[in-house]
Amino acid sequence: MEPPPSPCLWQDAASGGSWVLTPYIRADLDVVEANLRRMQARFDALGIRLRPHVKTHKLPRLALRQVELGAVGVTCQKLTEAEVMVDAGVGDVLLSYNMMGEERLRRLAHLRGRCRLTVVADSLPVIEGLAWAASVPAPRGGADPGPLPVLVDGDTGYGRTGVSSPAEAVALAREIASRPGLRFAGLFTYPNLPTTRPWLLQALGGLAAAGLPAEVVSSGGTPGAAHAHEVPEVTEYRPGTYVFNDRMMVDRGAAALSDCALRVVSTVVSAHPPARVIVDAGSKALTSDLLRGSVEDGYGLIVEYPEARIHRLSEEHGHCDFSACDRLPAVGEVVTIVPNHVCPVVNLFDRVALFRGGSLQEVVPVAARGCSQ
Amino acid sequence: MEPPPSPCLWQDAASGGSWVLTPYIRADLDVVEANLRRMQARFDALGIRLRPHVKTHKLPRLALRQVELGAVGVTCQKLTEAEVMVDAGVGDVLLSYNMMGEERLRRLAHLRGRCRLTVVADSLPVIEGLAWAASVPAPRGGADPGPLPVLVDGDTGYGRTGVSSPAEAVALAREIASRPGLRFAGLFTYPNLPTTRPWLLQALGGLAAAGLPAEVVSSGGTPGAAHAHEVPEVTEYRPGTYVFNDRMMVDRGAAALSDCALRVVSTVVSAHPPARVIVDAGSKALTSDLLRGSVEDGYGLIVEYPEARIHRLSEEHGHCDFSACDRLPAVGEVVTIVPNHVCPVVNLFDRVALFRGGSLQEVVPVAARGCSQ
Repeated sequence: MEPPPSPCLWQDAASGGSWVLTPYIRADLDVVEANLRRMQARFDALGIRLRPHVKTHKLPRLALRQVELGAVGVTCQKLTEAEVMVDAGVGDVLLSYNMMGEERLRRLAHLRGRCRLTVVADSLPVIEGLAWAASVPAPRGGADPGPLPVLVDGDTGYGRTGVSSPAEAVALAREIASRPGLRFAGLFTYPNLPTTRPWLLQALGGLAAAGLPAEVVSSGGTPGAAHAHEVPEVTEYRPGTYVFNDRMMVDRGAAALSDCALRVVSTVVSAHPPARVIVDAGSKALTSDLLRGSVEDGYGLIVEYPEARIHRLSEEHGHCDFSACDRLPAVGEVVTIVPNHVCPVVNLFDRVALFRGGSLQEVVPVAARGCSQ
Repeated sequence: MEPPPSPCLWQDAASGGSWVLTPYIRADLDVVEANLRRMQARFDALGIRLRPHVKTHKLPRLALRQVELGAVGVTCQKLTEAEVMVDAGVGDVLLSYNMMGEERLRRLAHLRGRCRLTVVADSLPVIEGLAWAASVPAPRGGADPGPLPVLVDGDTGYGRTGVSSPAEAVALAREIASRPGLRFAGLFTYPNLPTTRPWLLQALGGLAAAGLPAEVVSSGGTPGAAHAHEVPEVTEYRPGTYVFNDRMMVDRGAAALSDCALRVVSTVVSAHPPARVIVDAGSKALTSDLLRGSVEDGYGLIVEYPEARIHRLSEEHGHCDFSACDRLPAVGEVVTIVPNHVCPVVNLFDRVALFRGGSLQEVVPVAARGCSQ
């Protein structure tokens, strides 16, 4: 009896010798390289330092490549992500999240001895914790890393973290500067909004008057990267999604579909007339993230059937409507899906298949997957 | 200097000796045990075999406990989940997903030698693949497991997988019965809907006329469990979510809040007047799954602040509105969140902290996390 056709990817012996079953993720390294170079060139031209966010790729090799191409370092949201990147040789990290809790701060203190580390704060309790971390002696007589640089996180309109007003930013900068283990290093915000520049100008004015110059002004976001020059006070920029891009970036005009480097590879497991098709990528592969908060555009784009709509997700099923297509796919057919939001998709997979020139190069672990701590 | 208060959980040396940082998940085993016993007693009283779905807990120890309490075996959606459960000693598995692709079917053939395995099919290509798998010789002269039992998956109204009509179910049953390596074992559907019983009755009539009796009629779903008696033709039932429950189950009247055994433990990392509060559980901890498809009810229930609303998620931030609360939480405060949909939340964490009688018992790996293949 003939074996059935296989929708699996064979990983050769050199890379571990195993099969990769659908659903899996694949990244096109040629597209990645073009995305990295384009963004680096843009910020080089603006004279703004690039500090890419690793939250999208979660891969040490891409973080190192970003630095190789000119990035000043990387941005990590969580401590555990930063530990993975520093273990792999990344030497300069901005931890863009309020760090708190004894154990986390102990590990942060340890990490300081292994890389150039900058942190953020938006309240007094966070500053107090950081001051405590800075007081933890270097392990086994390691070199004193000096005062810990802290950026004040300001909410310039997005409504997430950050102090509410420029005056509060100045007050926190004073608190940081008053602690011997800490050094006030500048301002931090996300993303650039129409309200961002006036906010920053007011804060920078207050800081100058207080004798606390902001060495760094950090902002971020792939969608706003093309307009980064509109806030010339920004000295560092932290885009993340641009490495892979996704439907959201295409929808916001920040990327073309051909710039989307990552796809979820999935098998059609059921197809019934008139148009009921099920693929093996559900919410455990695509996430429930929507485009513009509406289910209208579905949960991803099936590249081979752009008229199809993934209208609903079960955990392991993508429910597709093929009414607008001229034929149903065959059961067993393999399709590739550009996700709505690529960052949490990468977080769902233990491994990623890396392609170059159309050929599989290697299947590698998503080293910082699950690092939400 | 005093260390700051710690929102971390200490895992003692016996269980691996490490800290568990927020966000993490904790399950209350007393609530779990009551949930398991209640569901088993319900189906024992109905004379319907219980075959719980492991997709919710993903924990071998709970699968084994379900069997110990009277379940006939377990249900797994994907092959890799089934492999984890069989490795841990589960002896009877229904693989409730169309299995296809050479490598997957080879592994399925191997799995047959290690447990009592039943599979499903809703099309001829799937049956052909299963027939091929059944023809793969048992490894190293192991015992012949006999013909592979196959259930025909019927779409009785939900619109996911399954043949469209009872007549097609009968036709596929004939195809299965005609293949020497396979055995037609019955019908499979999900969930019980008002259209389910008429559909099943028609299919069962057709099967009887064709001399193909359905030994098993399998349905599932926690929300429908209380009404399982309304489809007396069902012989096996596959609830999954009931082990932990979640806000969706409470919303659908299938559970009380006190039956929700799993919570996401999270730290308040930012809190600014009037009501802007950020917790460290974002979409990488809570998923973007909504209640009734609307953001109105938010992304989870903060147990300590039931009036607060998690109105938006970033990957690592839960954006909370505390307007309806009489106070803001302190920065550094630890809160516990009942998720909207618990199954994909468990899939996001490498480990789960198990509590009994209010005390930490053990922190164990989520063994079938990420098993979407």
